Amino acid sequence: MPRPRRRFALCLALLSLSAAALPLPGQVRVASPDGRTQVTVAVAEGRLTYAVTRDGRPLVLPSRLGFRFADQPPIDSGWAIRDTARLSHDEWWTQPWGEVARVREQYNELAVTVEEGGQADGRTDGPSNRRTARRFTLRLRAFDDGIGFRYELPAQPGLESFAITEELTQFTFADNPRAWFIPSDRPRMDRSEMLYSAGPLSLLREVQTPLTLESTDRRTYLVLHEADLADYARMNLKGGCIECRTLQADLARMGDGIAVRGRTPFVTPWRTLQIADRVTDLAPSLLGLKLNPPSAIANTDWITPMKYIGIWWGMHINTMTWGSGPKHGATTANTRRYIDFAAANGFGGVLVEGWNTGWDGDWIKNRNAFSFTTPYPDYDLPGLAAYAKAKGVKLIVHNETSGGIRNYERQMDSAFALYQSLGLDAIKTGYVTDTVDGGHDHWSQYAVRHHRRVIEAAARHGIMVDVHEPLHDTGERRTWPNMMTREGARGQEYNAWSGDGGNLPEHETILFFTRLLAGPMDFTPGIFDLLIERGPGGPRRPEDARIRTTLAKQLALYVVLYSPMQMAADLPENYEGQPAFQFIRDVAVDWDTTRVLDGRIGDYVAVARRERGGQSWFLGAITDEEGRTLDLPLNFLTPGRRYVAEIYADGPKAHWLDNPLPVTITSRPVTSATRLRMVLAPGGGQAIRIRPAR
Amino acid sequence: MPRPRRRFALCLALLSLSAAALPLPGQVRVASPDGRTQVTVAVAEGRLTYAVTRDGRPLVLPSRLGFRFADQPPIDSGWAIRDTARLSHDEWWTQPWGEVARVREQYNELAVTVEEGGQADGRTDGPSNRRTARRFTLRLRAFDDGIGFRYELPAQPGLESFAITEELTQFTFADNPRAWFIPSDRPRMDRSEMLYSAGPLSLLREVQTPLTLESTDRRTYLVLHEADLADYARMNLKGGCIECRTLQADLARMGDGIAVRGRTPFVTPWRTLQIADRVTDLAPSLLGLKLNPPSAIANTDWITPMKYIGIWWGMHINTMTWGSGPKHGATTANTRRYIDFAAANGFGGVLVEGWNTGWDGDWIKNRNAFSFTTPYPDYDLPGLAAYAKAKGVKLIVHNETSGGIRNYERQMDSAFALYQSLGLDAIKTGYVTDTVDGGHDHWSQYAVRHHRRVIEAAARHGIMVDVHEPLHDTGERRTWPNMMTREGARGQEYNAWSGDGGNLPEHETILFFTRLLAGPMDFTPGIFDLLIERGPGGPRRPEDARIRTTLAKQLALYVVLYSPMQMAADLPENYEGQPAFQFIRDVAVDWDTTRVLDGRIGDYVAVARRERGGQSWFLGAITDEEGRTLDLPLNFLTPGRRYVAEIYADGPKAHWLDNPLPVTITSRPVTSATRLRMVLAPGGGQAIRIRPAR
Repeated sequence: MPRPRRRFALCLALLSLSAAALPLPGQVRVASPDGRTQVTVAVAEGRLTYAVTRDGRPLVLPSRLGFRFADQPPIDSGWAIRDTARLSHDEWWTQPWGEVARVREQYNELAVTVEEGGQADGRTDGPSNRRTARRFTLRLRAFDDGIGFRYELPAQPGLESFAITEELTQFTFADNPRAWFIPSDRPRMDRSEMLYSAGPLSLLREVQTPLTLESTDRRTYLVLHEADLADYARMNLKGGCIECRTLQADLARMGDGIAVRGRTPFVTPWRTLQIADRVTDLAPSLLGLKLNPPSAIANTDWITPMKYIGIWWGMHINTMTWGSGPKHGATTANTRRYIDFAAANGFGGVLVEGWNTGWDGDWIKNRNAFSFTTPYPDYDLPGLAAYAKAKGVKLIVHNETSGGIRNYERQMDSAFALYQSLGLDAIKTGYVTDTVDGGHDHWSQYAVRHHRRVIEAAARHGIMVDVHEPLHDTGERRTWPNMMTREGARGQEYNAWSGDGGNLPEHETILFFTRLLAGPMDFTPGIFDLLIERGPGGPRRPEDARIRTTLAKQLALYVVLYSPMQMAADLPENYEGQPAFQFIRDVAVDWDTTRVLDGRIGDYVAVARRERGGQSWFLGAITDEEGRTLDLPLNFLTPGRRYVAEIYADGPKAHWLDNPLPVTITSRPVTSATRLRMVLAPGGGQAIRIRPAR
Repeated sequence: MPRPRRRFALCLALLSLSAAALPLPGQVRVASPDGRTQVTVAVAEGRLTYAVTRDGRPLVLPSRLGFRFADQPPIDSGWAIRDTARLSHDEWWTQPWGEVARVREQYNELAVTVEEGGQADGRTDGPSNRRTARRFTLRLRAFDDGIGFRYELPAQPGLESFAITEELTQFTFADNPRAWFIPSDRPRMDRSEMLYSAGPLSLLREVQTPLTLESTDRRTYLVLHEADLADYARMNLKGGCIECRTLQADLARMGDGIAVRGRTPFVTPWRTLQIADRVTDLAPSLLGLKLNPPSAIANTDWITPMKYIGIWWGMHINTMTWGSGPKHGATTANTRRYIDFAAANGFGGVLVEGWNTGWDGDWIKNRNAFSFTTPYPDYDLPGLAAYAKAKGVKLIVHNETSGGIRNYERQMDSAFALYQSLGLDAIKTGYVTDTVDGGHDHWSQYAVRHHRRVIEAAARHGIMVDVHEPLHDTGERRTWPNMMTREGARGQEYNAWSGDGGNLPEHETILFFTRLLAGPMDFTPGIFDLLIERGPGGPRRPEDARIRTTLAKQLALYVVLYSPMQMAADLPENYEGQPAFQFIRDVAVDWDTTRVLDGRIGDYVAVARRERGGQSWFLGAITDEEGRTLDLPLNFLTPGRRYVAEIYADGPKAHWLDNPLPVTITSRPVTSATRLRMVLAPGGGQAIRIRPAR
C-alpha cells in the first residue's frame, strides 16, 4: 500500500545559518525535501550517533560514528554538539553524457560541529582536560532518493596530521533485509569479479559496496555505498554477530596496516544510503553523482560516448595472444582489418590489446616490463592511428599495468602526450594484480590517489578513460567526465575461460541492481558465437562450452547494462552476415532519459532509454534461467506520435542451454498506448529500437 | 524435457561375487537400478577416484578419496584396485512411523577393494616396499534416488588403530549449481540455528549438510549429506578457490585436533548424494534411511508419534522462568493445567522445562549443576506423572545438559529408570553449548558417541527421544526408532527473542527443502498470539514484535514440517476459543504417504500426506513474503470416492506484516478430479483436512 508523501515548498539555493538552536538537547534533525526521510544526529553518553527514519518508521537505528587512529585517541566517545548549520539546495544541471541528461540536485543539508568534552550535555567526559579538544563536522545531506554523510576535520591545533586505522561508522538496520553481495575478503586478481550470493544482512561477513538490500516486506530498497572517493581508502563493510543487523565500515589498508593518512583540513568520502520504494526506482542511480563536486573540465566537447570493437576476445578464447609470436593479435594487418570493420559499421573506436612491449613472459609478475610508448615491431602505432583517423575511427590504447603503479606513472605523461599527438583520445587501463606496488591493497589510499592522478593526467591530455580491475565507481565522473566507464565486476570474459563454467543466466539481472548502481560498467556484451570451444588453458569441457545466454539477450544488454563506451565484443567475422548485428549498429550509447519498466533482482529486468539528442527509444529486457513473458506499457512514448518498433526477440524454442541462436526480427507500429508483450526465452532477452515513424 | 528411463529387471536379494573382472583396466562401474545414474571408480596415477554420471552426462567429475592420519601415511595416492564384489538388493520394509509407511530399498552395490602398491595398473607406487600394504574397501550403493559410498577398513596388520586428521573425500561438480546453505564456522550455541543464504557452489566456504543444490538448468536437484553417523566425526563441507566447483569433507575435531580415532575393522558413515529431476521429488527423502542398518528394536509398540504442548514458550517470551522463583513455569499447579488442556484436546504429551534442579544461576556455564532426577520443590514429578496417566497423557521429561556430557551420562541410567518407573516414555534433551566436556566440538566423534549412547540407553528403558541442539539427522531412526525428532535448525523460538528480529517469511519454505530432507524437525509450530511484546531481555522493539507469519501458515506447518512429535507451541490460553485450533486437534502426526504437490525453494511449497491407518489426507501450503495462488489437482485422492475438505485459509486481506490473524474456515466436497485453488496471503498458508464424506 503506497505511503503518503508530503511535499515542502522548494527553496532555491537558500542558505541559512542557525545558532546552536537544538530541537532537543543533544539531538538535531534534517529531513529530505519530501519529508519522508529524516536523519537524526544525537549524542548519548558522549557518543555521537545518527539514525534514519522513513515515513516515521525506523530504517537505521542510532548508529555509531568515529575513527581509530594509530597516533592519537579515537574519535568515539566524549563528544558534544557545539554548533549546527543548515542549508537547502535545489539546482538542475546537465551532464555531458550519462543515463540521463539533466539531474536535479535537491537536498537539505545539516552540518553538525562536534567537539571533545561534554559541555552541551552537561557532562565532562573525555580527555578535554589533558589535551586540546578536537573538533570535526558531520555533514549530512538528505535527498528524496537517499542520504549521504561525511566527516570533515578542520585545520586545528589538536589534529594536524593523522593516521586512521579503523573507521567506526556503523549502519544498524531496524529490519533484517535480504542482501545481494560479493565478499570483500576472497583472494583474487580483482576481488570484484565474482558471482553474487543472497542472504540475510544478519549473516553477512565481509562484503563490498554497492550493497543492495531488500526489506523483509519488500516495500523499501536500500543501497549502501560511498561517493567521492578521492583521497581515502576504499570502504567495504563487515558484519558482526550472526543475529546482529549492524554493518561497519571496513577500510582497505596500505602495506603498513594504516588505512588513511591525512592532514587537516580533510574530508572523507560520503557514506551513502540510497532509498527507494520499489526496486525499479533504484536505477538510474544519481545519488552518488549529486554528492561529487561539479565538473572540473570546462570544455567537454572532446568527450564522446562511443561503441567500439577490439582485438581482445581472441586472446580470451585462445585464438590470439597478447604477447609476440605467430598468434599475436595486435599486428598492423589485423588492426587494419578491425579499423575497416569499425568504419563500415559506425563504431567510434578500436581497442587493441597487446600492442606494447611487456607481454612476453609472466606479465602479471613482471609488472615493470610494460612500456606504454613502445609498440611491438609488428604494430605500427602512428600509421594505424592515421589510418583509423582517415576512416573516422580512433584507436583505444591499452595500458595494462599489472599493478605496477610506479612503472605506469613514470611513463604516464609522455605516453598520454604521445597518444594525444597521434589524435588518440581514449585509453583502457588494467590492474591485474592482487596488491599494487609496495604491497598496498588494490583498494588502498595509495591506489586511490593513483587512480585520481591517472584521471587528471588523462584529462590534461584530452583522453577518456576505461578502467579495468578498478576501484569501485563513486561518482567521480561528475567531476571528471573523462572517467567514462570501468569493469569492477564479473563481465563477459568469464564466459571464455572461467574455472567454474562461466556466468550464470541470472548474473546480469543481479548486476543491474547492484554493480550498475555505482556507475557504468564495461561489461563487453555482444558475443554471437555462443559455443566457445577453447579457453586459454586448452579445450574446454563440453559442459562449459556454451555461454549461458541467448543471442537476443546479448543485444538487450546494450540497453540494460549502461556504458558510455560500449563494446561489440566478438570477433568481427562472427558479426558478418548476421541480421541481429543491425541492432548493435543502431543502438545508442548516450541517453537523455532512462526508465526501468519492470524487474526483480536476480530474475529479470526491462529498461527503456531515450537516445540523447534524438527521438528514438531503446528497450532491453533480460531474464534469468527461466523464460518469462512481460507485458509492458509503452506510455513513456510521446502521446499522439507514431513510432515503429524494430524488435529482436528470442526465436522459437530458443533456450540458453541448447538453442541460443534463434532470433526473430520483426517491425510493428506502436504508440504510447501500446502494451507490448515480450516473450523471453529461458536465459533470454529482447532488444527493441522504437523510432519515430517516417 | 523428460529424460528416457531404462528399467532393469528386478533381482530380489541376489548376491553375486565376481572375481576381479574389470571392465576397463583401473575402472569399475555400478549403475542405479533404472540405469540413469552411474558411478565409476577409477585409479589414475595411483589415485583412487569416483565419478557420477546422470543420463550419460557428467554430474560429479572424478573426485578424490582418502584420508590423512596423525600416525601414518595418508590414504591418498599409490593405490590399486585388487578386487570387486557386486550385489543387487530389492526389499520392501515397513517403518514403525514416518512420512511414509513402506520403503522400497532397491540398489546395486559395488564393493571395490583397494590396496597400496600399484600391481594392478602396472606401476610400483607408494610405500609398499617399506611397510605392510594397507587395504580398504570402498562400498558404493546406487539407488534410483541417489548414491552413497563409504570406506571400510578391514582388520589388517598394517592398520590396527588409527587417528584421522582429515578426510580427503571431495565432490567435484560438473555444473556450478546454486546452493542453499548455512555456514559451519560461525560461533553460536548451536551453529545450525541460522537463516539460509543462497549462492553459487563455487563461492561456498564452510557449510553444513544436508546441502541442497539446484543445477544451472534447473533440471537436476542434488542433496549432499551423510548417513549412519555412529562412531565418527560429523561431516561439514568446505569449498576451494572461488572458481572451483569442488567441496571437500570437513570433519569436526575433538579437543586435541584429531577428527576420528578408531580400530579396524572400521566403517565410516555413508557419504550420500540424493538426485532428483524436480525439486518436488526431493521429499520425502528416504536415501539416508535406506543406508542405515535395520531396526535394532524388536518390539516398537511403545513408540508412538504424538502431538504435545509444553511449559516452554512462556520462558521464551519471558512470562515464565526455567529457574525457581515467582514466575517458575514448572510448578505442580501449572503443569496440572497443561495436563488438563492436553487431555481435553487429545494431545499425547506435556513437555515441562525447568522441572529439575540446576537452572538457577548461569546454567549454560554451570553444566554440572543439573540433576536429572531431582525436581524443584514446587514440582511433584511422581504425582504429576500419575495425574497425567489417569488422563491418558504423558509428561515429556526435559534433560538440558548444556553440553555437560559427563554429568548427564553419570545420571542417565538411573534417570531413565526413574522415568520408566513413573510410566514416562519420552524425553527432550538439550545441548546449549558451543563445546562439550573436554573442549570437544559439539559435533565431534566424542559427541557422536555420546548421542548414540543416549539413544541406546533410552531404548533400553522404553523412552522416545527428541534432541535439541543435536547432531544432524543421518537416518539413525531406522536403526533406533525411538530416535524420534530433533531441532538442528532455526525454529520457532527465534521469533520470541532473536536479535535479528525473528525468522523471515521465506524461512520454512527453505527448511522444507534442506533441513527437513535429513529427517524430522521439532520446529514447534502453532503460535497463535503473533504479537510478541516481550523477550527475555526486556521489551522488544515494536518493529520486531510481530512474528512474520499468518495464523493459517502456522496451521499449514503441521503438514509441511514433518515431526512425529509435533508441538502446539503456544500457551494454552492462546488456543482457547480459537476455531483455527480445531485443525491442530485434527491433524495427524504419522503418515502412510507423502506427496509434494508443488514448490520452489525459498518461495513456497504445498504438501499432501495421508494419515497412517486412516483414510484422511492433510494438505499444507505455505508461501514466503509474497502472496500466491496455487492451483492443485487432488488426483492423489482415491478415484470414485467422495471427500469433504475442511479448509483453513488466510482470511480477507490477511498479511504477515500487519494483519496476520484472519482465518477463513470452510468446508466443501472434493474428489480426485477436483482442482483446488488455494490463495495464500503474503507470508501465509493454508491447511486442509480432506476426510472421506460420511
